[in-house]
Amino acid sequence: MADYESFQNETWHNISAILTNINDITNELNQAFLIIMGIIMLLMQAGFAFIEASCVRCKNAGNALLKNVLDTSVTVIAYWTCGFALAFGKGNSFIGWEMYWASSDIEYEYMAFFFFEFVFAATAATLVSGALSERCDFIAYFIYSFLITAFIYPPITHWAWTDEGWLKKGLMYEINGVQEQIGFHDFSGSGAVHLVGGTAALVGAIILGPRIGRWHPVTGADMMLKGHSVPHAALGAFLLIVGFLAFNGGSQLSMTKKGDNIIIALAITNTIISGSMSAFSALVIRRLVGRNWSVLYTVNGCVSGMVAICGGCDVFRPWGACIVGLVAGVGFNFTSWWVAKLKIDDPVDAVAVHFNGGLWGVIAVAFLSYPNGILMAWDRRSGLMLAWQIVGICAVILWTGTLSAIMFGAMKGLGIFRVSEEVERKGLDLPIHGEHAYPPEAYDDETDLDRILKILESGQFTPSQLGHILREGKDLNNYEHPERKVSNQYAGRKRSRGLSITPSEMEIVVKHKEGIGKVRRQSFAPSEMEIVVKPNTEHPSRVNEAFDEESEKNIEESINNYHKRKGQ
Amino acid sequence: MADYESFQNETWHNISAILTNINDITNELNQAFLIIMGIIMLLMQAGFAFIEASCVRCKNAGNALLKNVLDTSVTVIAYWTCGFALAFGKGNSFIGWEMYWASSDIEYEYMAFFFFEFVFAATAATLVSGALSERCDFIAYFIYSFLITAFIYPPITHWAWTDEGWLKKGLMYEINGVQEQIGFHDFSGSGAVHLVGGTAALVGAIILGPRIGRWHPVTGADMMLKGHSVPHAALGAFLLIVGFLAFNGGSQLSMTKKGDNIIIALAITNTIISGSMSAFSALVIRRLVGRNWSVLYTVNGCVSGMVAICGGCDVFRPWGACIVGLVAGVGFNFTSWWVAKLKIDDPVDAVAVHFNGGLWGVIAVAFLSYPNGILMAWDRRSGLMLAWQIVGICAVILWTGTLSAIMFGAMKGLGIFRVSEEVERKGLDLPIHGEHAYPPEAYDDETDLDRILKILESGQFTPSQLGHILREGKDLNNYEHPERKVSNQYAGRKRSRGLSITPSEMEIVVKHKEGIGKVRRQSFAPSEMEIVVKPNTEHPSRVNEAFDEESEKNIEESINNYHKRKGQ
Amino acid sequence: MADYESFQNETWHNISAILTNINDITNELNQAFLIIMGIIMLLMQAGFAFIEASCVRCKNAGNALLKNVLDTSVTVIAYWTCGFALAFGKGNSFIGWEMYWASSDIEYEYMAFFFFEFVFAATAATLVSGALSERCDFIAYFIYSFLITAFIYPPITHWAWTDEGWLKKGLMYEINGVQEQIGFHDFSGSGAVHLVGGTAALVGAIILGPRIGRWHPVTGADMMLKGHSVPHAALGAFLLIVGFLAFNGGSQLSMTKKGDNIIIALAITNTIISGSMSAFSALVIRRLVGRNWSVLYTVNGCVSGMVAICGGCDVFRPWGACIVGLVAGVGFNFTSWWVAKLKIDDPVDAVAVHFNGGLWGVIAVAFLSYPNGILMAWDRRSGLMLAWQIVGICAVILWTGTLSAIMFGAMKGLGIFRVSEEVERKGLDLPIHGEHAYPPEAYDDETDLDRILKILESGQFTPSQLGHILREGKDLNNYEHPERKVSNQYAGRKRSRGLSITPSEMEIVVKHKEGIGKVRRQSFAPSEMEIVVKPNTEHPSRVNEAFDEESEKNIEESINNYHKRKGQ
Repeated sequence: MADYESFQNETWHNISAILTNINDITNELNQAFLIIMGIIMLLMQAGFAFIEASCVRCKNAGNALLKNVLDTSVTVIAYWTCGFALAFGKGNSFIGWEMYWASSDIEYEYMAFFFFEFVFAATAATLVSGALSERCDFIAYFIYSFLITAFIYPPITHWAWTDEGWLKKGLMYEINGVQEQIGFHDFSGSGAVHLVGGTAALVGAIILGPRIGRWHPVTGADMMLKGHSVPHAALGAFLLIVGFLAFNGGSQLSMTKKGDNIIIALAITNTIISGSMSAFSALVIRRLVGRNWSVLYTVNGCVSGMVAICGGCDVFRPWGACIVGLVAGVGFNFTSWWVAKLKIDDPVDAVAVHFNGGLWGVIAVAFLSYPNGILMAWDRRSGLMLAWQIVGICAVILWTGTLSAIMFGAMKGLGIFRVSEEVERKGLDLPIHGEHAYPPEAYDDETDLDRILKILESGQFTPSQLGHILREGKDLNNYEHPERKVSNQYAGRKRSRGLSITPSEMEIVVKHKEGIGKVRRQSFAPSEMEIVVKPNTEHPSRVNEAFDEESEKNIEESINNYHKRKGQ
Repeated sequence: MADYESFQNETWHNISAILTNINDITNELNQAFLIIMGIIMLLMQAGFAFIEASCVRCKNAGNALLKNVLDTSVTVIAYWTCGFALAFGKGNSFIGWEMYWASSDIEYEYMAFFFFEFVFAATAATLVSGALSERCDFIAYFIYSFLITAFIYPPITHWAWTDEGWLKKGLMYEINGVQEQIGFHDFSGSGAVHLVGGTAALVGAIILGPRIGRWHPVTGADMMLKGHSVPHAALGAFLLIVGFLAFNGGSQLSMTKKGDNIIIALAITNTIISGSMSAFSALVIRRLVGRNWSVLYTVNGCVSGMVAICGGCDVFRPWGACIVGLVAGVGFNFTSWWVAKLKIDDPVDAVAVHFNGGLWGVIAVAFLSYPNGILMAWDRRSGLMLAWQIVGICAVILWTGTLSAIMFGAMKGLGIFRVSEEVERKGLDLPIHGEHAYPPEAYDDETDLDRILKILESGQFTPSQLGHILREGKDLNNYEHPERKVSNQYAGRKRSRGLSITPSEMEIVVKHKEGIGKVRRQSFAPSEMEIVVKPNTEHPSRVNEAFDEESEKNIEESINNYHKRKGQ
Repeated sequence: MADYESFQNETWHNISAILTNINDITNELNQAFLIIMGIIMLLMQAGFAFIEASCVRCKNAGNALLKNVLDTSVTVIAYWTCGFALAFGKGNSFIGWEMYWASSDIEYEYMAFFFFEFVFAATAATLVSGALSERCDFIAYFIYSFLITAFIYPPITHWAWTDEGWLKKGLMYEINGVQEQIGFHDFSGSGAVHLVGGTAALVGAIILGPRIGRWHPVTGADMMLKGHSVPHAALGAFLLIVGFLAFNGGSQLSMTKKGDNIIIALAITNTIISGSMSAFSALVIRRLVGRNWSVLYTVNGCVSGMVAICGGCDVFRPWGACIVGLVAGVGFNFTSWWVAKLKIDDPVDAVAVHFNGGLWGVIAVAFLSYPNGILMAWDRRSGLMLAWQIVGICAVILWTGTLSAIMFGAMKGLGIFRVSEEVERKGLDLPIHGEHAYPPEAYDDETDLDRILKILESGQFTPSQLGHILREGKDLNNYEHPERKVSNQYAGRKRSRGLSITPSEMEIVVKHKEGIGKVRRQSFAPSEMEIVVKPNTEHPSRVNEAFDEESEKNIEESINNYHKRKGQ
């Protein structure tokens, strides 16, 4: 029987080893699931970036995109240092604090979860930047992005998504004689993510005030400021759809437990159905009201539907997703109109998409969750569900609204929230970022200076697409303008940091030979013109310090030589 | 022995629990595989969208992109309500019907498969919209997208991919004395997806007729209408490559069975090799025939190769994929030329890519499948394989062609298939969607009206990239045109729906002071001009109803004041 | 006891079957992991493509994108035929050679690994093309891409990543009395991928020489040539971030072993933290030095940080990743400045990003790897680690530098490395690829010819966004220019290959009626003009051969008729 006992022991040992093995493997796979879904979800950052870029004017496109590239950077640092600790560190029912500051004391198998949650945090912060586009200062952007991700957003996820959170726990109720715990249900963040971002966006947009020219200063007429690129919006929409599927599917947090994938598949099917129905309803309403099939309304409608389904995509049936989407599209149109009516300027409709979508998404859970929702059960339990959903909404709006108001108000008080009127009119790209989104000199083989001179000289704008100017049958491209030579010599002699003179740093003045002063272009022949290139006094920069009398004389002289050489 | 028996029982119990456990886990993982691959595959929608957008002119770019965004929406609703039931519901060898209507009676672990198959369905429908671009009406688009995904495409997948499908089952043959079942083989849809889309595209393009200006009305000369953005084509190509790998790899449908990943890896390696070789052959042939290294031919060639490999990417060796790709590239060039020769206008070359690629892909299976293909075996079995592949092709073309012809023909008969000539000339974006793809007013901080007035005033086009107009040394940007003030007052007084007046709603007429009538711009000094802004009678819209005598007088008056103030 | 024995046997059998089963499943899953990560990594190709496209001028954008689309194609063929054999085939410590040529003798479960490694190879090759942009010949591109992927890159991965590689094996040392093997550590290729690409890019850029106009020919002043699209750079950045996470996470090569996902999650968290910190430091330094918040520096800074973390993302703590990123951003700025100082022209800053980032990434491993790095341990082991990292760097630079110099030098010697000055000035897109990146005729509904004629006629550029020209109140769009009719008749009569006449093939000459010859546009009234459309003698092409006296007369005549009909 020694044999028997050893066999028995070995069998037990083997079986328990296998069970441990299986457990380890599924543990690994669930982390891998979070990682893969998290990576795909990051496409949403690109999606939001291009939707925002599509909604701003060309002169602010670089700013919009830079903010979105930095969103990922700012939020990962903010969430890593503080946010994750406040959200998922041990603490009380209101906030976590004991561990995870800068991932200290982290159990390393929790790292995948940290990464996954960071992507959610990045989403919440990104929404806000869209609503403040085209007028918010760049430093202010850094401050609010950091604060939202580090302090405002995390406690809400602590309430709604951790076992010790007061919203998730809810309260015990006796229903039909059975004790039952009913609390706030928000599967992938209609409330905890989108409503947070939407509320902050709303408060920020109110405090920041509308863009110059958004409404007529005298009459108050609506002077819609159109964005610069519909293809950007479409690109954003596609990337958001892909990202949202990972966002809502990934919220199941594991893929190996029995039934996990039923919920994941249901969540993504509901997501795509809700987005579709919302796109339709937004499109059709816009067609009825505005007389056209608007691309941007469709895109925003689609996103609204996907926002609204987040709350209950795990508990709705697909037909429920249809209803959620249809209502989301209607609500988007209405909110968009209402926000504009209140003279709140939200360039990307972030409030209509995320505030409205998130709010409706949280409420829809109580009505449509299967089979316990109000529409199906109409009982005390579903009523209590609705109550808790409303409690959740109030908590999110109060917390986010109050903190946002303090934060944005303080920045406004300090005068660092908004760019100057001059910068806003010129667009943020050149004054703040020093770069055109589409630098004109890159569209043909000339510098701006060449280009300007050619235009002045020919009295005619030369579109780059026509190629070279033919002038007396000669290709001007091969001709080096003396102005350019001078400015280059100057650049070589006086400056050492590899910058070329940009048009924003200089002023081109056209003088009539006889000295009438600055006059309008094109009203005289080139041979009568004097062209003076001067440092632009509105943009004081290093270039000006060095731009002395002598160089000015050099330039004027060479221009004269040029005309002389041309034989006048 | 009680101990022994209980041990035995417990061991059996444990082992069977472990087996169940493993089975459950692999079951979950296979669903997760479909979900992850399905999500990545959705990038193909973006890919097709940007390829189509790159191939249309700027004036139709918004329309092309909106259709593609909606493709996902229309197809998910169509496939969810009807398509999936017809394709994978129980039924007979020809069609399914018993369950799955709007995912009713669905076993929920089948939901992941539904999502995966929906992405395939979306692909089939998307192909068609490209071929009908720039002239197909928007309502017609909705109708044909829905019908293709709901009714035309699904039965074919029932034939080719379900166990009860007549094409997949094929027939029993006695080969070398052994009974063997030989049927249609189409791993990831050269025939069932791409040939379907390609056939519908071909029929649709024939019935819809060519775009205005595609061929010279008198001489019939080819007047290629170039698309507006090569970068869009490259973006589309990259996203399609990524998506196609998931498309062809995902078709294995599971990732845990022994050998699954050998086939998946083989499928994706074959896909990328075939796409590459096809890109080369398309590029080189184009170089020989057309004298340049064409980006668009390379992109389309690459896609052709990936389409052609779908059929047998699980059974080819990589060298077989080389052959498939080389032939696909040649075939693409030839078909593209031939289609144009026949005066069939296919803006995105969908027929050359998907019809030709799909057709060749189905046939290639019989020749190159390893080790049973004709090139290797040259026996009765491979001959029968070829026969069944040809049967499959005929079935797909007949079914799709007939139904498409009825559908498109009916729409043509009803006069809802094609936009009016006026709309086609103006481009679909403004008249139908009310939005420029790149709204000109977003490229500087002026409205169209401002812009037009400035141009008229200066007698000179002012490219936005030069920034502000200097006029007598003053920056005109800070000057508010009285015209704008008037139009805004008007907007505030008479209209209530938040729309600004768009240029398409008004007509700018320039009159000589002395009243000669409408004359050409720029031939007189601004001080001699009278500018009249009138509602555009070609675009009757709400604005016109309200545009009365009085407002016209107001505008004229303020223009006169403006000139007066300017000191004439 | 027969029962007992059979039970025992069956139990053993069952348990061993289960173990085999689990083993098979994990084996499959690890392959699936490589496949999924590989597919996501392919997005990096799109990322690099759009970063390069953003950095070139419009006239070379098509070329840049085509090269990147083809990168995937060229590298898969090169790596499949030769590269994989040299890298991972059996051989000695220096190179592999025994198997895997064109995936011959491949164990098929190795196919997923082949696919995964191919994506790495594609990355190494892609880096080079950016540095040689805007002036490198297209054929030369094919040659160097193929050679790098097939021969230069693979041996290095053999050294660094295979068990028989001399760099990975390192040497045995006695440390504290224990024998320990210390070698080169490079988790996901700071050295083996990025330093290789960066070195080849540096050598190539030196040998190829700077672009025309990059520095002033006389003064040597820096005349920065700006790229044409900031949004492309942002798109590239987002796709690279997503791809890099898969790149660094996937390098763990399996996801089922215990602890695998701890390393994967650590690697991706480190990647995103390092990229973020590097983006910040690059941005802030640029702000201090260059006075603006530059989008392009931020994007390149972010990529630098992700490049630098590759080497040790599995062994750093997140705070280590912060340091790596901060230094990478500083180093990027410095290297970028230094490379320009040395008059090496690197349009995409590939040297600053990948050479500098890769080099620092390899060294950082020795300093920051936890807990054995120099900063923590300061012992003999960490010193030896540093020594081996330096050995690795020297080996990579020597090998790649020498072979690249031979390769690029040979191409230069043969005169096939660089395009002609004329082509460089005109941009590569039209002369070589026959396509504008943004064909101007696609931006309104006219051909180039129409457009040119309208401009000449009106003496005024007509921006497409203003829609139709009104001329005496009539819409010119509906008027068919006789020139067009003639050119179309001509096209129909004399040509047969479906090409329309492109502007690069013709010359528009404007003559004064009285025959003064070719004079400047716009200085006389349209009624005085004669417009002559002639084949462009600078672009001899088929069109010219056929363009005879007769057709020229036809055109002139119809132009005269046109003016006559217009009533002069």
